[in-house]
Amino acid sequence: MSSTPPPAHHPNMNVNFAERAHNHNWKLDPIVRSLLDTDFYKLLMLQFIWKNFPHAHVTSEVTNRTVKVRLADRVGAAALIDQMEHVRGLRFRRSELVWLAGNTFYGTRTIFEPAFLDWLEHDFKLSGYTVSEHDGQLVLRFSGEWAAVTMWEVYALAIVSELKTRAALAELSELELDVLYARAKTRLWDKIERLRGVPGLSVSDFGTRRRHSFLWHEYTVQALRVSLNGARNQGLESFAGTSNTALAYKHDLEAIGTNAHELPMALAAMASAGTDEDLRASQYRVLELWQQSYGGALLIMLPDTFGTTQFLQGAPSWVADWTGQRMDSKDPAIAGDEYIQWLTERGKDPRQKRLIASDGLDVEDIVRLHRYFDGRIRFSAGWGTLLTNDFRGCHPRGEDTLEPLSLVCKLTSVEGRPCVKLSDNLHKATGPVEEIARYRRVFGSEARVGSEILV
Amino acid sequence: MSSTPPPAHHPNMNVNFAERAHNHNWKLDPIVRSLLDTDFYKLLMLQFIWKNFPHAHVTSEVTNRTVKVRLADRVGAAALIDQMEHVRGLRFRRSELVWLAGNTFYGTRTIFEPAFLDWLEHDFKLSGYTVSEHDGQLVLRFSGEWAAVTMWEVYALAIVSELKTRAALAELSELELDVLYARAKTRLWDKIERLRGVPGLSVSDFGTRRRHSFLWHEYTVQALRVSLNGARNQGLESFAGTSNTALAYKHDLEAIGTNAHELPMALAAMASAGTDEDLRASQYRVLELWQQSYGGALLIMLPDTFGTTQFLQGAPSWVADWTGQRMDSKDPAIAGDEYIQWLTERGKDPRQKRLIASDGLDVEDIVRLHRYFDGRIRFSAGWGTLLTNDFRGCHPRGEDTLEPLSLVCKLTSVEGRPCVKLSDNLHKATGPVEEIARYRRVFGSEARVGSEILV
Repeated sequence: MSSTPPPAHHPNMNVNFAERAHNHNWKLDPIVRSLLDTDFYKLLMLQFIWKNFPHAHVTSEVTNRTVKVRLADRVGAAALIDQMEHVRGLRFRRSELVWLAGNTFYGTRTIFEPAFLDWLEHDFKLSGYTVSEHDGQLVLRFSGEWAAVTMWEVYALAIVSELKTRAALAELSELELDVLYARAKTRLWDKIERLRGVPGLSVSDFGTRRRHSFLWHEYTVQALRVSLNGARNQGLESFAGTSNTALAYKHDLEAIGTNAHELPMALAAMASAGTDEDLRASQYRVLELWQQSYGGALLIMLPDTFGTTQFLQGAPSWVADWTGQRMDSKDPAIAGDEYIQWLTERGKDPRQKRLIASDGLDVEDIVRLHRYFDGRIRFSAGWGTLLTNDFRGCHPRGEDTLEPLSLVCKLTSVEGRPCVKLSDNLHKATGPVEEIARYRRVFGSEARVGSEILV
Repeated sequence: MSSTPPPAHHPNMNVNFAERAHNHNWKLDPIVRSLLDTDFYKLLMLQFIWKNFPHAHVTSEVTNRTVKVRLADRVGAAALIDQMEHVRGLRFRRSELVWLAGNTFYGTRTIFEPAFLDWLEHDFKLSGYTVSEHDGQLVLRFSGEWAAVTMWEVYALAIVSELKTRAALAELSELELDVLYARAKTRLWDKIERLRGVPGLSVSDFGTRRRHSFLWHEYTVQALRVSLNGARNQGLESFAGTSNTALAYKHDLEAIGTNAHELPMALAAMASAGTDEDLRASQYRVLELWQQSYGGALLIMLPDTFGTTQFLQGAPSWVADWTGQRMDSKDPAIAGDEYIQWLTERGKDPRQKRLIASDGLDVEDIVRLHRYFDGRIRFSAGWGTLLTNDFRGCHPRGEDTLEPLSLVCKLTSVEGRPCVKLSDNLHKATGPVEEIARYRRVFGSEARVGSEILV
């Protein structure tokens, strides 16, 4: 633009010819690029399964609870299989295993046994699966040894979720994409602003499975860390960590999580071959086995699988020694009050206990619940889909193709026996009708409400 | 991450070593990179000056009307001089001159005479200048032949504006920068959405001089084009073009603009050596000279330099033949009504005339004024600072360092005689007190209000 030397940035002299040509050669843009890209509790449960039930045969299935969205019309089975096969080709990398062996989780070293890590390195592999279509939905089923099936849950959900995202993004122009992310970032930042400066707040990322995409997930986690920890937040450390093991590893964050409904569901299915009393007792058997492997902050129970109230009322006295509980299907204010009262009746100080909410929370719920429980119990929020996939109203043409779905992956059978979950929300019950009826007879069905499921 | 071949994107194989090293070598990131990066009316006025007043000596000065902001505390004189010297080193490129010669402006070919383009190529150069500091403000003064001084206006304003932006951006982390632009883009998109689907709307970009930065300016212009023209806007062509000649050239847009207060101010200063009647007549002498060079859509008058009402009431009858007027300092609804009535009294059909508003408009003003004048006169909006520099409330730490300033560059003298502008807004009057008093006596001072100046 001048007769003087050209501006120092002259753009055409530094074309990276190799990169440009290479970019044309991409065969696949993998969604899951590391076996650590899963919830930390899956690894804890995997070790539990490897140790206690190495030969149990299970089946599981991915379901879209948002049935109005015909997922198969948006996501092709072939693209899904390409991504699943990529994950099946992954192995735990040496440096990842060294990190799992040497890192401190919840203040404890060597949470993972050397024999387990050796098995992870040499013998772990994902099970086979089938993909089919039914009534506009993708049907994704897994079958095999429990340890080979269980890890599919988060990989499969994250893949389906991001494939749906990519299909929606493919419709947009460069400018529309830019505007989309500008809106989503503005939304995210406004949410994080609500969380700043709240003393004692504890928030974790729980959003892997239904995230918009891996990169967006990583962005939200970095935004939380920068904004809620340290100098930018008056020295508060409100961001406790992430459930995503790959992000915890990559960004030196705490890996967060303990266990899921999968365990009581599986143990109940196995016990359901026996008496009703065997079935009822199985929900505590899970805890007995768990505390043989883990202690301290990992002793977080999940009492809502077959109803929280019956779980607490029927629990052996040692259950009150556990560190805390996670609430996943009941109004957290009610469930928390119930837990506090239950602890007090058993002579335990609730202020030493942990209470975790994780059911479709958004920022206003988090602040409200934190204030509600502040000083009464140690409250933590697991912020999931509405952290990592809140693009509601952000689509530049006003379409709904980027709204999150209520995708779940649930065990359907163990050793040939059907799996059941009742939960505290009638709409979240899963399993065959006749089995649900038996479980309701055994566990009772009082105090269960029907709340609409958003995510 | 696997024992299978690495994912196709493997990031470390394609480092552009030369680019990376070169990026460390940057001496200057120029703000103005082409002499076309100016308002189109400056080129039209430059030809007018070159033709009619090739030897007039003038002075001009950059002023920050937002005095509460101590600009010198943010922008260093050395950085300013580096940028100014870069512009002084620029020349019109051959391809730019070919475009000026061959392009159709306002439907007219060869608006620029070959002799003028030849002069631009070989003889045009920017005047000298001085930079000093006074009371926290930068004082930037130009002196020389009018044709050498006039072009500084937009270059200098854009440089000061962007240097202030850069100083504010330098305080922000990578994430904060990202959030800043996400918010600004969300704001911009929301504004553009308000303009979509409004039949007959005509909006132009007038935001060069007080823009946030060149790149942001370019982004806003592209956003307007994509969103307001063609299929995305139901076939409407609501974005008429840009006042920025470099962007018009680069993106095949209409270059918009006609003339500015500089001309009547200069001719008045020259005439002020004579009688009061000479002074009063000078405002119409500008129009006479202008229509010797330009016709059609370029016959847009700017009647507010010494007060709109006196200008219209005292105008010779041929002034009513002009194509339209631009309103820059009076409530556009009032000024437009006044013009419509004035045209009607002179037997002209206002529906054949053009009315342009350009004084600190934002999107709600634009829509309101369009509706107000729709069907009565051809209304166009020149959208300036609040298009290209609306970062109010976007700063990630809530600071005000990115708010736009009311920067102006005004002629201070011509041939040793001081320049005066009265305008329709008392707060916009410029010039020495005693000269303003004389001008008020000559031109009157009725019907002038004092509106606060935002930008």
